Parts: sequence; C-alpha cells; structure tokens
Amino acid sequence: MNESSRQIGPKRRGRRAGGEDTREALLSAAREVFVDRGFEGATVRAIAARAGVDAAMVNHWFGSKEGLFAKAVLQVPIDPNVLVERLLDGPPEEVGERIVRNFIGIWDATGGGQFAAMVRSITSHEQVAEVLRQFFVHTLLKRLVCHLGSPDAELRATLLASQIFGMGVVRYVVRFEPFASADVETMVRAIAPNLQRYLTGDIS
Amino acid sequence: MNESSRQIGPKRRGRRAGGEDTREALLSAAREVFVDRGFEGATVRAIAARAGVDAAMVNHWFGSKEGLFAKAVLQVPIDPNVLVERLLDGPPEEVGERIVRNFIGIWDATGGGQFAAMVRSITSHEQVAEVLRQFFVHTLLKRLVCHLGSPDAELRATLLASQIFGMGVVRYVVRFEPFASADVETMVRAIAPNLQRYLTGDIS
Repeated sequence: MNESSRQIGPKRRGRRAGGEDTREALLSAAREVFVDRGFEGATVRAIAARAGVDAAMVNHWFGSKEGLFAKAVLQVPIDPNVLVERLLDGPPEEVGERIVRNFIGIWDATGGGQFAAMVRSITSHEQVAEVLRQFFVHTLLKRLVCHLGSPDAELRATLLASQIFGMGVVRYVVRFEPFASADVETMVRAIAPNLQRYLTGDIS
Repeated sequence: MNESSRQIGPKRRGRRAGGEDTREALLSAAREVFVDRGFEGATVRAIAARAGVDAAMVNHWFGSKEGLFAKAVLQVPIDPNVLVERLLDGPPEEVGERIVRNFIGIWDATGGGQFAAMVRSITSHEQVAEVLRQFFVHTLLKRLVCHLGSPDAELRATLLASQIFGMGVVRYVVRFEPFASADVETMVRAIAPNLQRYLTGDIS
C-alpha cells in the first residue's frame, strides 16, 4: 500500500501524513542533519523539511528534538527529557543509583548491540563524536548536573560520562565477565557510589 | 640494504638476526597469532616460527610475550609486566593514583590516536575483544588485583577496566571537555579515589 501511494506523486508529497513512512523519513533525515549541523544547529524545522513532512510530526512521533536524536543517533527508544526527569525524581543522593538502573535497563533491553553500534559509529566518524558531545552537554550537563548545584559542573558531567561509557564498553562491547552478566543490584552496589561521588562528592 | 639481503635467499632466511626487519616481522606475526589463538594460546615459539626468526628475538625486542602483545595489539611501547610492577611499587592505598598517572602518561604521549585506533579495532573485530579480555584477565586481574588481596577479584578487575576504558574514551575518542584537556593532577584528584574504591573498597 505504501509502495503504491509513493508512486502517485513526487516522493516528498506522496507520504501519508503521520504514517510509519513519515517516521522513517524523519529518522533518516535526522541522522543527516544532526551530523551535518551538530545538535544545536539542527532545527526541528530543517529536519522536517529534509524529510518532506510537517514539523509537528517530530513531536507526534518522538516527543521532542531530543527524543528524535535518541532514536535516530543513539538508537534507544527513550526521550532524554523524560529520562532526565526520571533520574531527578527522588533523593539527590540516589541519582547515581537511578543512572545505573536506567542505563542497564535501557541497553540490556536492546541486547547491547545498539550500544556497540554506537561506539563503532563514534570511532569511525569524527562528526558523530562531535554531535554526541553537543547533545551530552545540552542534556546531561545542563539538565542533570547543574540541577544538583555542585561546583565544577562541566568536569563532573564529563567524569560521569567516563564511567557511563566505560560501563557500556565493558558490558556490551568487550563483555568482560563477571561484569557483563552481573545483575542490576550488583551493578548498583558497585558503581552507583562512584557515579554519586562524581555528581555531588569532593572531586578536587 | 635490507631489501637486497632479502632477495638473496628465501624470505624467512634472508632476515638479519636481531635487525629492525626481525622486529617488524615479529609484530606482524604476533597480531595474526594473538587474534587467531587468543592470548593464552599464542606461544612465543609459534609467533617466532610465523615470523621466521629465533624465539629469543621476542625477549630481545619486547622483553616478554606481554611486551610483544602490548606493542603489537595495544600499540603502546611498554611491557605490561614492568607496568604492573610499577603500579604495585608503593603504598597499596595509592594504586588508583598510580594507575591514573601511568594511563594518562602513556596515552597522552601517543596523542591518544592509538587508543582510538584500539577501540575502533575492538568494535570491528570480535576476536580482538576476546584476546584483549584474555590479556586483561592474565595481567591486570592476576597480577594487580589479586596481589592486593581483596575479595571478588574478578568483579573488581572488570570494574576497574570500566573506569579505565571510560577514561580513555572520553579523553581520546569523544574528547569531552574539560576532561580531555585536564592536567594529570586534576585527573588524579577526580578519578583515583574511584579506582581505589574498586581495588580495595566496599563494593557489595
């Protein structure tokens, strides 16, 4: 059905508004525009125009620009705005624990293959590393670390990133045991205090 | 000169014992044999035979099988046996600090490009991840963590690996600032206590 409807008019006009092909077109356009222009420079309007669909479709399908980025570039089905709210919802001294639970919950559910693919993409394309950096600063730094009010927010955010990236590499890429198969409670007890120190502890 | 000497006899016999071409032949053979057979399975004898040189040349050029592995696979010019001794030389409560100093000292000196290349290689070739895992267990686990006598040595070693990998990824691959340009003292104050907790602290 979609195939035949595409053939009626020019490709950009042939898509059904709001349909699955609109979603796919947005994902494809988003990958190009984010890598071309960076996270800040890529506007919802520009991505929608590249996809040939209405800009309102971004919110319809992905909730926000951040949600589209997460699905298109990180390939995780979660809106980072929702994630940050979830991480901040509770005692500040337990943010580290919530990070471990959410990180492992999200990536274990994909079998970790998406994490490995993301790392491969980062190491092959300088621009992917750059857009990821901008995204990271925009969301995790400004929304999470600054919210906690600790000094040296930029350094803390990148320290946090180092342990989170490392957790993903050892669990999903090189798969060192017993780390790769450890249950979430073991991971929380082992890693959460270290994340918490980066967030709110003495690091200088 | 080397080119002409190679043409006198068959390739394997034409090399000058102990010369630079012997060293290159060993590096090339080592990459193949380590990836084919894993770290434990790759013998010095097999690598030397593949290179067509005397097995004594491994110690002559690289100090040990571990030193050959480090240069051939990790592409760092340090014998891991020497590194482990250096890390253990001093108060046990300062091993974390010595890890940060040595890690940053070694990889900063290469500009970090070799670290990024290693990560790229790991994400592209399953067998590289496997040989790295074996090497890591053989050296860091058995020699460093077990030496400190903490329980759960395997888990601690992999936790340690997660923060060390993450440090390399953020500093040399995605290059998040201010982490990527932070001086070694800042890195030590921020990260060493977290490594030390994984080595000797309460993780359960």
